[in-house]
Amino acid sequence: MADGGQRHRVVIVGGGFGGLLAALGLDKQPVDVTVIDRRNFHLFQPLLYQVATGGLSPANIAAPLRSVLRRQRNTHVLLGEVGGFDLAAKTVHLKDGTAVPFDSLVVATGSTHHYFGRHEWEELAPGLKTIEDATEIRRRVLSAFERAERTTDPAERARQLTFVVVGGGPTGVEMAGAIRELALHTMRYDFRAFDPAACKVIIVEGQNRVLGGFHESLSAKALRSLHDLGIEVKLDCHVTAITADSVTVKPDGGTAEPYRIEAATVVWGAGVKGSPLGKVLAAAAGVETDRGGRVPVNPDCSVGAHPNVFVVGDLAQFKGADGKPLPGLAPVAMQQGEYVAAAIVRRVKGESPGGAFHYRDKGAMATIGRAKAVAESAGFRFSGFPAWLAWLFIHILYLTRFENRVLVLFQWFWNYVTRNRAARLITGERSADARS
Amino acid sequence: MADGGQRHRVVIVGGGFGGLLAALGLDKQPVDVTVIDRRNFHLFQPLLYQVATGGLSPANIAAPLRSVLRRQRNTHVLLGEVGGFDLAAKTVHLKDGTAVPFDSLVVATGSTHHYFGRHEWEELAPGLKTIEDATEIRRRVLSAFERAERTTDPAERARQLTFVVVGGGPTGVEMAGAIRELALHTMRYDFRAFDPAACKVIIVEGQNRVLGGFHESLSAKALRSLHDLGIEVKLDCHVTAITADSVTVKPDGGTAEPYRIEAATVVWGAGVKGSPLGKVLAAAAGVETDRGGRVPVNPDCSVGAHPNVFVVGDLAQFKGADGKPLPGLAPVAMQQGEYVAAAIVRRVKGESPGGAFHYRDKGAMATIGRAKAVAESAGFRFSGFPAWLAWLFIHILYLTRFENRVLVLFQWFWNYVTRNRAARLITGERSADARS
Repeated sequence: MADGGQRHRVVIVGGGFGGLLAALGLDKQPVDVTVIDRRNFHLFQPLLYQVATGGLSPANIAAPLRSVLRRQRNTHVLLGEVGGFDLAAKTVHLKDGTAVPFDSLVVATGSTHHYFGRHEWEELAPGLKTIEDATEIRRRVLSAFERAERTTDPAERARQLTFVVVGGGPTGVEMAGAIRELALHTMRYDFRAFDPAACKVIIVEGQNRVLGGFHESLSAKALRSLHDLGIEVKLDCHVTAITADSVTVKPDGGTAEPYRIEAATVVWGAGVKGSPLGKVLAAAAGVETDRGGRVPVNPDCSVGAHPNVFVVGDLAQFKGADGKPLPGLAPVAMQQGEYVAAAIVRRVKGESPGGAFHYRDKGAMATIGRAKAVAESAGFRFSGFPAWLAWLFIHILYLTRFENRVLVLFQWFWNYVTRNRAARLITGERSADARS
Repeated sequence: MADGGQRHRVVIVGGGFGGLLAALGLDKQPVDVTVIDRRNFHLFQPLLYQVATGGLSPANIAAPLRSVLRRQRNTHVLLGEVGGFDLAAKTVHLKDGTAVPFDSLVVATGSTHHYFGRHEWEELAPGLKTIEDATEIRRRVLSAFERAERTTDPAERARQLTFVVVGGGPTGVEMAGAIRELALHTMRYDFRAFDPAACKVIIVEGQNRVLGGFHESLSAKALRSLHDLGIEVKLDCHVTAITADSVTVKPDGGTAEPYRIEAATVVWGAGVKGSPLGKVLAAAAGVETDRGGRVPVNPDCSVGAHPNVFVVGDLAQFKGADGKPLPGLAPVAMQQGEYVAAAIVRRVKGESPGGAFHYRDKGAMATIGRAKAVAESAGFRFSGFPAWLAWLFIHILYLTRFENRVLVLFQWFWNYVTRNRAARLITGERSADARS
């Protein structure tokens, strides 16, 4: 794979925000770059909920890695699954036996769902991390409406029309808003046996407010927007059980009894942990992952006593100036990827090392249904339509790396004008036969 | 489901071209319509090869049935799988036990792949009938290029870069052209270990020309276009064996020996047969399906001695004026669907029956890569760029029922200008973990 040549070899594992920005930062530099990913595309995860609710197609938010890096002649994309690291021998081992040598290593394999030990919930309440997750949730949400149309039993219909979203962070709030809009507007005239507006969307959140990462005033505004949309929010509540047709919720503190919500569809947005490769790397580097499976990193994003091994993005536990770990957000991963690329270039060129990584917080935003959002940036907080416009603008801007940015903008404009969600297809089972 | 009311109940099984046009033809008529389909969308099958080669997303060529029929208040969409028919009791039985009563029945479940008894080929050489087929072929084609990039063995690389399309009809020709263009243009700069132009695309056709349904002069033009694109065409040849990494081809007649083509990817475009429900209906109606599994119909598209039971589209074997069965084309299905709807309306209103179904042949067309096509209509035959423009125009026109027609047009325009095929995602296996 690597040409064994004289040039410094950089291996980047993972083509998400962190890995991709690291690779792009090495363009035209005197290094040979190999990007290894299991998937052949970079995924714009912040918009996965749009795929899960039929607003966008997978290809709208995924860009083939080869395509993004096609003109970067010093860079090689390798589709493969990493099994282990030999840091002493400076080698990455793929599961198929291939050994990929490196001089510098960047690991950016992101995060996966965290069910806090309740593995049996994974099938019952899928999370939203991959294209397959999104089309699976889309299949479940749309199938529930179909079953509601077919049944003649009012209790069963109510169960099919109840959607529980576990977690009131940005993902949970966006998913809940999108499901409700799907029912209220897009599918308004689609059914004969019930009024889609009768569907119930419930957010269960363990904290005392939604969007816990935002300023309290925005949490309050978001809560109001959610109520306006007809979404029920249960704060200070934990999920204690999930079955195929119910969720059991326990209010925190006090003596309130757990109660059962009859719901056919549950979406998990409550937690993430570092990808499994984090533990493998940590063991190889002689460090310990934190409770969230993240790899603690030094101020320059390197790991343990290995100045040439870096972890960036969701997989890294980076302590900020205030001693708190940086949140698992795309901008953090992107800035870390850029930082590490620059650090490697300086080292290869024999320049003096730069300072520690410093996260420039440009703000955060979340949408709540059509044309509603909350945002905060540099001390400013705003909400409603202006925040939504900002959200739209920023997201379009960040799709820079995607050839089809213009298409997505057009698709969105179209969806906005027509309230269309044309991608609401129930797909999945590969059935070779024709319709019946 | 059906309300058991006074109105004439029409049950349509299958929401493809035939079934959908039958349903649309019953809009605002004094009947109650139920459309039953396994899938929640109508699929524009003629463009499936675009999905299989990353040019379009599934949602671009699929329209939710409920969405298409949302304003048609006398029509009800039922997502379900039909298991049997009781024509005496005028009931359709779904596999889940639901009984759907009808006064008139239209069966339009289309066709499926025909492997001529070689069921073991189905996995090795997938055909192109469903969204899942298309994404599976896309996965295989793109994965072959990925494996070619990874291997260091020249023979293995050549095998991965060889694509065999079985069948030289419109589907085969379009698939072959699209794969070759994908390699020559879209992925031109994507690989480091080989030049994508080195990929071989081979069509194996049993007849002595491609596009056997067209005039011979167009077959010759198509052949020339295929050669220009660098596609190899083996005429008068049959496939005698398929394995995971090879296809064995036997030239017809003479004493030529069969020979083996090393190829990692095989696509089946050689034959279709009526969907399995055809045999079930034929048995219920006391008729016999033909060798292609199609149900023979009367001149008014009704079946056997059941004037209220119709079969339309690919599933019907309708003998034209010349005694030859009509081809399995979308226009035939659409015209039959419209015809049957009108026949039912006349009957319900007590009007005199119309004449037999007559197919108005408006021509046929096939594309061979970008900006090349052959077309014939009303005795006119044309090819090259004008035919391609006509092809584009007609297809856009036929997407009438799709809300996202404008989007598809835009996507296409974009793809044409940029030679982009942004939807080249390898998806399928639902992997919950993050990248590695």
